[in-house]
Amino acid sequence: MLLNTEELLAQLQDALERDDFDSAIRMLDVLRGPDQAMLFAELDDDEQQELLPKLDFSDSADILEDLDDPETAKLAASLPIETIARIIDEMEPDKAADLLGDLSKQQTQALLARLHDADEIRPLLIYPDESAGGLMTSEFIALRPLMTAHEAVEALRKWSPDADEIYYLFVVDEEKKLCGVVSLRSLILAKPNTLIENIMDPDVISVKVGIDQEECARTMSHYDLAAIPVVGEDGLLVGVITHDDIVDVLEEEATEDVYRLSNLSDSELDPDSPILEQLKGRLPWLYLNTVTALFGAWVISNYEQIIAQAAVLAIFQSVVTGQGGNTASQNVAMAVRTLATERVGAKTQRRIIFRQFVMGLLLGLAVGAVVAFGVYLWRGNIYLSLVLGLALVANLGLGSMLGVLVPLGLEKIGVDPALASSVLVTAATDSMGFFIFLSLAAHFLQEIQ
Amino acid sequence: MLLNTEELLAQLQDALERDDFDSAIRMLDVLRGPDQAMLFAELDDDEQQELLPKLDFSDSADILEDLDDPETAKLAASLPIETIARIIDEMEPDKAADLLGDLSKQQTQALLARLHDADEIRPLLIYPDESAGGLMTSEFIALRPLMTAHEAVEALRKWSPDADEIYYLFVVDEEKKLCGVVSLRSLILAKPNTLIENIMDPDVISVKVGIDQEECARTMSHYDLAAIPVVGEDGLLVGVITHDDIVDVLEEEATEDVYRLSNLSDSELDPDSPILEQLKGRLPWLYLNTVTALFGAWVISNYEQIIAQAAVLAIFQSVVTGQGGNTASQNVAMAVRTLATERVGAKTQRRIIFRQFVMGLLLGLAVGAVVAFGVYLWRGNIYLSLVLGLALVANLGLGSMLGVLVPLGLEKIGVDPALASSVLVTAATDSMGFFIFLSLAAHFLQEIQ
Repeated sequence: MLLNTEELLAQLQDALERDDFDSAIRMLDVLRGPDQAMLFAELDDDEQQELLPKLDFSDSADILEDLDDPETAKLAASLPIETIARIIDEMEPDKAADLLGDLSKQQTQALLARLHDADEIRPLLIYPDESAGGLMTSEFIALRPLMTAHEAVEALRKWSPDADEIYYLFVVDEEKKLCGVVSLRSLILAKPNTLIENIMDPDVISVKVGIDQEECARTMSHYDLAAIPVVGEDGLLVGVITHDDIVDVLEEEATEDVYRLSNLSDSELDPDSPILEQLKGRLPWLYLNTVTALFGAWVISNYEQIIAQAAVLAIFQSVVTGQGGNTASQNVAMAVRTLATERVGAKTQRRIIFRQFVMGLLLGLAVGAVVAFGVYLWRGNIYLSLVLGLALVANLGLGSMLGVLVPLGLEKIGVDPALASSVLVTAATDSMGFFIFLSLAAHFLQEIQ
Repeated sequence: MLLNTEELLAQLQDALERDDFDSAIRMLDVLRGPDQAMLFAELDDDEQQELLPKLDFSDSADILEDLDDPETAKLAASLPIETIARIIDEMEPDKAADLLGDLSKQQTQALLARLHDADEIRPLLIYPDESAGGLMTSEFIALRPLMTAHEAVEALRKWSPDADEIYYLFVVDEEKKLCGVVSLRSLILAKPNTLIENIMDPDVISVKVGIDQEECARTMSHYDLAAIPVVGEDGLLVGVITHDDIVDVLEEEATEDVYRLSNLSDSELDPDSPILEQLKGRLPWLYLNTVTALFGAWVISNYEQIIAQAAVLAIFQSVVTGQGGNTASQNVAMAVRTLATERVGAKTQRRIIFRQFVMGLLLGLAVGAVVAFGVYLWRGNIYLSLVLGLALVANLGLGSMLGVLVPLGLEKIGVDPALASSVLVTAATDSMGFFIFLSLAAHFLQEIQ
């Protein structure tokens, strides 16, 4: 279903190279908004800057709404201010506010002075991007309880929003406090003189303007809502968030989990990000891991004399730590995703921790037996094999238990388990693994040599 | 906004212990459907089996719709068949079909014979859970182009679906082929005698019944749709998928990415899954990693004599491989999430690979300098420090490049990059790291000893 852009892109770039803007515009015109944006995003910066002002403002607005945030801001900043003001006028207010938030203070002021709908956007600028206020649009219809269904339909007729999707109509009282919700279906089915208060559902689920976007997304997904009203601290209706915004939020949060588990703290990074930004997001984690790696090295250094007598230990020590790390990171992944999508009760937590300890011992037995057997065939030393097997059982048992204990503990003290679990758990399985293997081996040094 | 279940759960369990079902039912009654399900899910198996048949069928149906799939099937199988048949009658057809699909063939047949709406569910049973057909509901209204708006409203009035959300109305021609879509808003605003064909949008986005659920979700999210029609190979309208289903799919896919990156292939696992299921999902990956770990051990074994002369090498070899692995897994995470959410053109790919090689060298320099300096302070041997620093630069450079090359390559040959990248890349950074460090060290053996 999704567009295959490869060929279209080649044609479009070809047209642009020939400065044949008419063809280029015609090629975009036959596409739907999101497809236009997808194709446009593939163009080089200079091609984008050349083409955008030649499209009509509403197409340009659609495209800017769908591009990535930093990309949009860069492109907008490169255009004449009058052009970008007219484009922003055509954008949905929440997307327009996001864009203004990414521009310099000076540019934002200059643009606000030139916009036709500045009043719709200005209030949205005060909310952080990652809050309900940052997601919501200020473009909504509020009905009153004593309106008739006919009056509501007339209000709907006069209203022409930039986005033409509406899912529910919200109702406010004389103080503009949210007091109900009417589905479009019940409005259609109502007799014209029915009062809104008789068809509205007063039990309306809403979110506060300041709450985090992830909680917003979870609430909408929990109650299967296509749209949710946003209220101020005083209960006044201030905006509406729609389902398409929460899909983006959930994707962002999933990316954040994956990144944090892989020692990346900045979820805006991608493999094509500028080198300096990548260094900033990646190096601190590598330095943290350097500290734990050097601690592991210190553990080994206590057995330097023993390794000098039995260099074979240096060959296998990493098998013990590596497998402990792998087992633990399986647990961390399961724990982090479980905590991200549901609540885990205290009783369940205790069962999980015990079960994962047993689990680790079983995995240790299964892996340890195979490694011990393989190494016996290879080196022919039964003591070495036994020490290796036992060390694997112990390290996988402990690693598996820590792999759930650490994320659960971090969640309890209010730290994102995805953020720190990997580093802490790997540090533990490395140091413990070296210690267990080498100290066991030290006992059987005569036999292993 | 989400319910704090801790206290409610205690009260509910208390009531159940006293066999006070009236109180228990009243406590659930004041809650909204998804909250009832959340609370219900926290009960023990025997409490669930006792309580469910005492709720009214439509509440039970809401609860079963929101529970996890395997849990639902287990619970349903434990109830009298007449009870579960009445509950399934109240469920949305797509959820009912999912449940029947999880029961034994015998149970399914027995239930189908007892259901009132078996004909609505039967066609859904043939589609795999993870396809568009498995997600869609067969409960929808189809309008005809020559109906008037008034007739459409009448049809809507007579129709009372199990789920009361509708977002768009789809239009089919005389052969039942999908030919247009009407928004509820335009139906409200239309004069009663307007023909549907005059207010419908013939450019309707649909998916084929057999496509994968992830492609479905991406299509809906790309076009910001609250609902999408599903058509058979012949273009006939067979069902509708709504936004709440795609949120679940995107969460599942995100979990799958996280799990696969952490060497878990079964995305249904959680830390509380039965031990046997966990062993089945986890052990194959650990065995695969055992093979690569033993290959790494073999690389080291080629330098056994050298380590016997300079045991200090055994202390630091894992620092080189560990940091190479960390760097590479940062890249794998970025590449996997980027590939999951967007298309990456050939030109961009080449730039990414080059950039990540440079990136790795820079990270290697930054980490290598610190490690070399620290190890010089600790051991006082400049040759050891230099060898360690150089090995880090080389291993991080190669690791970083492979961390994007491997996922991009897997994607190209049609393998999920999340599935195999971690194992392949870690195997490479381990073996290369040992080789680079130990072979460099061998050249300066005299000076390092």
